[in-house]
Amino acid sequence: MEDTEPQNAAANGITPRRTNIKSVEILDTTLREGEQFSRAHFSFPQKIEIATALARFGVDYIEVGSPVSYPNALEELTTMVSQLKKRNSNSKVLVHCRVNQEDVDMALETGAYGINLFMGTSKFLQKASHGKSVEEVSKLACNMVEYVHSKGRFARFGAEDAFRTDLKDLLYICAALDEAGVDQVDFPDTVGGATPFEVYDRILEFTKRFRFKVEFHGHNDTGCGVANALAAMEAGAHCINVTVMGIGERNGICSLSGLVSRLYSLDRELVKQYNLVELPKLDKMVATILGVPIPHDMPITAPNAFTHKAGIHTKAILQDSQAYEVLRPEDFGIRRTLDIASRITGKHAIAARVRELELELEDADIAIITEKVRHAAGLEPISLENVDLIIKSHKPSSAGKED
Amino acid sequence: MEDTEPQNAAANGITPRRTNIKSVEILDTTLREGEQFSRAHFSFPQKIEIATALARFGVDYIEVGSPVSYPNALEELTTMVSQLKKRNSNSKVLVHCRVNQEDVDMALETGAYGINLFMGTSKFLQKASHGKSVEEVSKLACNMVEYVHSKGRFARFGAEDAFRTDLKDLLYICAALDEAGVDQVDFPDTVGGATPFEVYDRILEFTKRFRFKVEFHGHNDTGCGVANALAAMEAGAHCINVTVMGIGERNGICSLSGLVSRLYSLDRELVKQYNLVELPKLDKMVATILGVPIPHDMPITAPNAFTHKAGIHTKAILQDSQAYEVLRPEDFGIRRTLDIASRITGKHAIAARVRELELELEDADIAIITEKVRHAAGLEPISLENVDLIIKSHKPSSAGKED
Repeated sequence: MEDTEPQNAAANGITPRRTNIKSVEILDTTLREGEQFSRAHFSFPQKIEIATALARFGVDYIEVGSPVSYPNALEELTTMVSQLKKRNSNSKVLVHCRVNQEDVDMALETGAYGINLFMGTSKFLQKASHGKSVEEVSKLACNMVEYVHSKGRFARFGAEDAFRTDLKDLLYICAALDEAGVDQVDFPDTVGGATPFEVYDRILEFTKRFRFKVEFHGHNDTGCGVANALAAMEAGAHCINVTVMGIGERNGICSLSGLVSRLYSLDRELVKQYNLVELPKLDKMVATILGVPIPHDMPITAPNAFTHKAGIHTKAILQDSQAYEVLRPEDFGIRRTLDIASRITGKHAIAARVRELELELEDADIAIITEKVRHAAGLEPISLENVDLIIKSHKPSSAGKED
Repeated sequence: MEDTEPQNAAANGITPRRTNIKSVEILDTTLREGEQFSRAHFSFPQKIEIATALARFGVDYIEVGSPVSYPNALEELTTMVSQLKKRNSNSKVLVHCRVNQEDVDMALETGAYGINLFMGTSKFLQKASHGKSVEEVSKLACNMVEYVHSKGRFARFGAEDAFRTDLKDLLYICAALDEAGVDQVDFPDTVGGATPFEVYDRILEFTKRFRFKVEFHGHNDTGCGVANALAAMEAGAHCINVTVMGIGERNGICSLSGLVSRLYSLDRELVKQYNLVELPKLDKMVATILGVPIPHDMPITAPNAFTHKAGIHTKAILQDSQAYEVLRPEDFGIRRTLDIASRITGKHAIAARVRELELELEDADIAIITEKVRHAAGLEPISLENVDLIIKSHKPSSAGKED
C-alpha cells in the first residue's frame, strides 16, 4: 500500500485542503463585464447600489467601464469614485480602457485609483479587432503604462485572448511591460476554452518570470470559469476577476460566489477578510435588478444550495452536517433546509420534524408516517404543511395501548 | 525563447486542443440525482418524456432511482425499460440501488440492463450513514456484484464520498471488487469539494491499477463540476455522470451541456456520436417541467450563450465568429445573436443591421446613428425595434448633398 498522506490531507473534512494559495485579491467587474451581459442595463443609482454593496463585502478592486463607453459615463464614474472615497471604502476603482490617449485621459479625470488597459494579443483579435502587430501592441501598451504612471496611478495591462495567443508573443509583450514597470498584467481566457491544466501551466510561466502581479479573468463557455480561476491561483496568480452571479458576455465569467466557495473549501482563512454574510445579499440585489433568478447551480447562493432531500442524505445531515456539506451555511448567514416533503424522504427526517413540532412519537409511528408522506408525495407534489398535517392527524399506536 | 509547441497546439482556434481523452461514455442521472433537486417531482409521463429525449440525444446510460425509493416506482421503471427497448434505444437503463437484497431483487425485476450499487466509503458516511467497517462494505459489495452477475446483468459499485475516503480504504475495496469482476466503479465527489488536481491524481490511481471501468460523478458545491469531470477523463475515466442542466442534491452536479461543451471544445470528434441539436431541446423540456429557467451561466443552452454585446466584440464577430466563440452555435441548432440595442454598441454592429434592413448608408451616417443609439440606450433600455426606428428615421448626409 502506498503512502496516502496527500490524499489524507484532502480527506480531512471541510478544511483545509492542500493548496499553494497564500492570499488572493478579488477584482469585481460586475459594472464592466457584467454590463456586457445581454440582460444588464444598470441605471446610475443601481450602479452606486452595487458598488456600495461590493465595498461592504470588501472586494479589493471594483472595475468599471470606460468613460467613453456611453454618454454620461464620465460624470457617473467621477461621482461613483468620489462617493466610494467618502465612505472610506477599501475597494479601489479601476477604469477599463482601450490603449487610447483620449480614453485614458478621461479615465484619469474620474479620480480612480488606476487604469485597466487592454488590447487583443491573439492572432484572432489582431486580425479581427485592431490589425496591429505584436511589436506595435507592446510599444503602445508600454507607452501608455508609462503615461499612467506619470500621472501617479496604478497601471494594468490586459492581454485579451491570452490563452489563444502564442506564448512567445505573450512573453515578448510581458518582458517589455515588466521593463516598463507595469503594476499588474491580466491574462484573460476571453473565449472560455482553456482547461485548468492549460491555465496552470501558462500562468506559472508568468508568475515565475516577471515582477508584475498576475491577474486572471476566465469565461465560462465550457463550464470551467471557477476551476480555471483556481488553477491560476495555484500557479501563483495574485488577483482574480469575478462578477456577481458570473454575469458577462455570453454565459459569463467566474462568479463571486463560485470563487468564494472554492477558496473557502480550501481554507477558510483565505476569505477571512471578506464579509461573507454580504454575499447572498449581493446576489439577491443584482438578481432583482436584472429580473433574473439566482441560477439553481450557483455555489452558496442558489436557492437550494443547502437543501438536502434524499432520505439517505437527510439522515446523515441530522447526525453530522459535514456528511454532505463542504461549506457551512451559517458562515454566509444562510439556513440549512431539509426538504422532507417528497416521495424520497426518510424516517430520520420525519422524526426531526416531529421533534420540531414538539411532539413525541414512537419509532413505529414515525415509520408509518414516513410511508404516508412518501405515498402522498408520490401522487402529487406536497408541501411541508401537508407533511405537518399528516404528522398531526396520525393516531399514535401507543395512544391506543394507553387507552 | 522556449519551445512553444504545446501552447501553439492549444492556441489553434476552436479545436482540437491537447488532450488524453480518446472516448467517453455519458451516464445521465436526471431521473435519479435530478429527482433529488429540491424543485423536481417528475410525473411518470414526464419521466418517459425525459428518458425518450435522452435516448434521442444518445446518452450511453440512463440511471434511474431505486424501485423501493417511492410507491409505484417498480411498476414505473418496468414500463420505462420496456418502452425504451421497444424504441430500440441504445441508451441502457441502470437502476440505482442500496447494497440490499430486497432492493436489488426488485431492480432486477424491472428488466434493466444493470444495477448501480452504492454505499458510503468515507469515515463521514461510515459514521453518519451505515455504521459499517471498510471490510464489511467490501464484502457486502463483492457479494452483491457476484449476485447481480449470476443474474446476467451489468454490475457497478459506487464508492460514495470517494474523495473524502482514505486512499488505502478505497484501494482495499477496489482490489476486492476487481477480483470479484465488477464491471464499473463510480468515484463520486459527493460533497463537491474536490479540485481538478485532486480528481486527476486520484482517478489515475484507479485507471492504472484495475481492470474495471472507472466512472466519475462530481457535485458542484464549489463550482468545479464540469472541470472535475474533465480531470477525471484526462486521467482515463471511461464514464461521466451528468444531469440535464446539472440538477441534483443542493446546487447539483456536472451538467450535460457543460460536459458536451468541454468535450466539443477539446475535439469535436469526442461528441460526434451524439445528436447535438437535441441538447437545447432537452434543457428546455426539463426547464419547462420544473418551472425554472435555464440558468444564464449554462454552457451552450443559456439564453445568451451566443449573444455578443460590447461593440468591440460585435465588430470582431462580424469578421470572424471564432474571434469570440470556442463553440459553433449552428452545430447545436442555435443562432448567434448580436445584441446591438445597448449603450455599449459599436458602429460595425449598426452597419451590419443597416445591411440586414437592405439600406445603404455612408460610414459617416453609420457613425452618427451609432451615437444616437448609444445615447438613447444610455437613457433607458431600448429594443432592436428602437434601433431600427433610429436607423430608418435618420436623414443621410449624402441625400442632402444630392439635393
